[in-house]
Amino acid sequence: MAAAVATAVAGAPNGKISDPRSAFMRAYDRLKSELLQDSAFDFTDDSRQWIDRMLDYNVPGGKLNRGLSVIDSYKSLKQGKELSEEEIFLACVLGWCIEWLQAYFLVLDDIMDGSHTRRGQPCWFRVPKVDMIAVNDGILLRNHIPRILRRHFREKPYYVDLLDLFNEVEFQTASGQMLDLITTHEGESDLSKYSMPVYRRIVQYKTAYYSFYLPVACALLMSGENLENFIDVKNILIEMGTYFQVQDDYLDCFGDPQVIGKIGTDIEDFKCSWLVVQALDRADENQKKILFENYGKADPSHVIKIKTLYNDLQLQAVFLEYERESYKHLIASIDAFPSKSVQEVLKSFLGKIYKRQK
Amino acid sequence: MAAAVATAVAGAPNGKISDPRSAFMRAYDRLKSELLQDSAFDFTDDSRQWIDRMLDYNVPGGKLNRGLSVIDSYKSLKQGKELSEEEIFLACVLGWCIEWLQAYFLVLDDIMDGSHTRRGQPCWFRVPKVDMIAVNDGILLRNHIPRILRRHFREKPYYVDLLDLFNEVEFQTASGQMLDLITTHEGESDLSKYSMPVYRRIVQYKTAYYSFYLPVACALLMSGENLENFIDVKNILIEMGTYFQVQDDYLDCFGDPQVIGKIGTDIEDFKCSWLVVQALDRADENQKKILFENYGKADPSHVIKIKTLYNDLQLQAVFLEYERESYKHLIASIDAFPSKSVQEVLKSFLGKIYKRQK
Repeated sequence: MAAAVATAVAGAPNGKISDPRSAFMRAYDRLKSELLQDSAFDFTDDSRQWIDRMLDYNVPGGKLNRGLSVIDSYKSLKQGKELSEEEIFLACVLGWCIEWLQAYFLVLDDIMDGSHTRRGQPCWFRVPKVDMIAVNDGILLRNHIPRILRRHFREKPYYVDLLDLFNEVEFQTASGQMLDLITTHEGESDLSKYSMPVYRRIVQYKTAYYSFYLPVACALLMSGENLENFIDVKNILIEMGTYFQVQDDYLDCFGDPQVIGKIGTDIEDFKCSWLVVQALDRADENQKKILFENYGKADPSHVIKIKTLYNDLQLQAVFLEYERESYKHLIASIDAFPSKSVQEVLKSFLGKIYKRQK
Repeated sequence: MAAAVATAVAGAPNGKISDPRSAFMRAYDRLKSELLQDSAFDFTDDSRQWIDRMLDYNVPGGKLNRGLSVIDSYKSLKQGKELSEEEIFLACVLGWCIEWLQAYFLVLDDIMDGSHTRRGQPCWFRVPKVDMIAVNDGILLRNHIPRILRRHFREKPYYVDLLDLFNEVEFQTASGQMLDLITTHEGESDLSKYSMPVYRRIVQYKTAYYSFYLPVACALLMSGENLENFIDVKNILIEMGTYFQVQDDYLDCFGDPQVIGKIGTDIEDFKCSWLVVQALDRADENQKKILFENYGKADPSHVIKIKTLYNDLQLQAVFLEYERESYKHLIASIDAFPSKSVQEVLKSFLGKIYKRQK
């Protein structure tokens, strides 16, 4: 029985992973159950149930792209060599650490933004009886990461590098979030402060490091690599992360809420979105006036004026052109890499997000 | 000039530290300036100013007992041997990491509790223009700790143990906070759920680990010790931390707001305070009715009824007796330790809190 389960986790007998996603989900169950038994805390029944529910609500409900990327990347780096059960499981564990990190950011971001829905359900802090306990739940999600790493990687030679990596990337993400919050505050008094350099800096720190660099960096560490030798890879992943966020901003306004799982509120929230930056860049004096008067107001009548302006400025076409150019540029940069396995890692990433609808 | 400053930091020429507090404050200035230059983030002027102000507002304004304890403890463990400048500075750095951790907890706790004042000034999230940005500021405070540790301890043999220690203690504190929040929710529908075992568990995790065990554990790691050999020391520090929290609960009701720097609201907030647990233990049926009807209500008329009941039950005397007994018991446990330097560490700690008024 144990052997059958193990085969299912590790993949089919020929060594190919039959279904990485179901192996990944099984790893989640194991990690959750380990956390609920963590001897560093003397759980009561109520607190154990709270965590159980909080994890299920916030951790596994996304697209899981970041987490699954660790496994994909690690496979590419191994150049088709058969992976052991342990290797697959450990790649899943690192993947889940990134998903935990993401859950932590989302729970707290939703509180800061006063959001309503996330992944097609109410934001965690809006669930009855949760409210501000969600702040501490966010912290607990974050604290689970070193608990997981310690349990499964303590004896690995790269353990300390893993801790440093997660710490650095979290710091960069929180710094990017600060920049976003401060910029939005300033933008509220002067919209013209929003510009492409400002936008790129926020996105690089707030999204790209943890969503794009972190999964690949985890796979590199597991492969015994020194991250200092992969600065070029980091730079291209940051570039890809920027493209990803531009898509996000586009979908916030032009995507299907049923498909993306939330109702976009970037316009209402005065966000430094790629769309408003492009609009500011292209608007004549009259159109600028419309932007200044209507951006960042909750009332639907204002929002509709902004959306109409975005249409007048043909921002959908501008986006499609940006998407085409980004893709071309990224592919060219990737092809310049000497290592085929690194090329494969990067192209697999790009393939997952190019022309995404959610 | 550099030599003069160095002497001032390290102490008088005879090797005694002339003023640990001023050396400690100088270390703060250095750590802050390093964080504001951290190359892992590309600061804008505005974001650098924001962090500068946020740190000054939240980090150094407390009693600094936890931070200073690292230096005291390390000196005791060195049994009077002269400390080098570097050793003193590194002990200060670890002390500040604990103060940063404390600042992070307080900023977020105040949001969760909806508090108004802290350390004699408005809570950070109540400062104009801060609001929910305070959630991210709390996270940044937390993220500064591994940045500081990496810069100053990366090459030390105990670096990974330091990371593990801070991670474990933070996890325990957040878990204790969860227990507190859940218990308070449950207590709101049934006050009789508050009891001494429930109380002790919350306090042990939420306060004692980071306030009492962590400073000593830092000093032990710096001295090259293995923490697994100091479980007894940990247990006695947890006991001391429990006594400290009982004082805190007592002062919340009976302390001088001018002296403690805040207006206590444990009664209004339905807190599982030592006082209400004692009151429940001692109340007759009539008095229990008063507790059930008035505890956890914001209106001053209810609060006054609870305070009157506390007086009727002579809880001030009960506290004084508890304080006397705790002290006696702690001293006896400390005297049973074979190591004189460990005894000194523990007694110095106890001396700082015994009969404190703030």
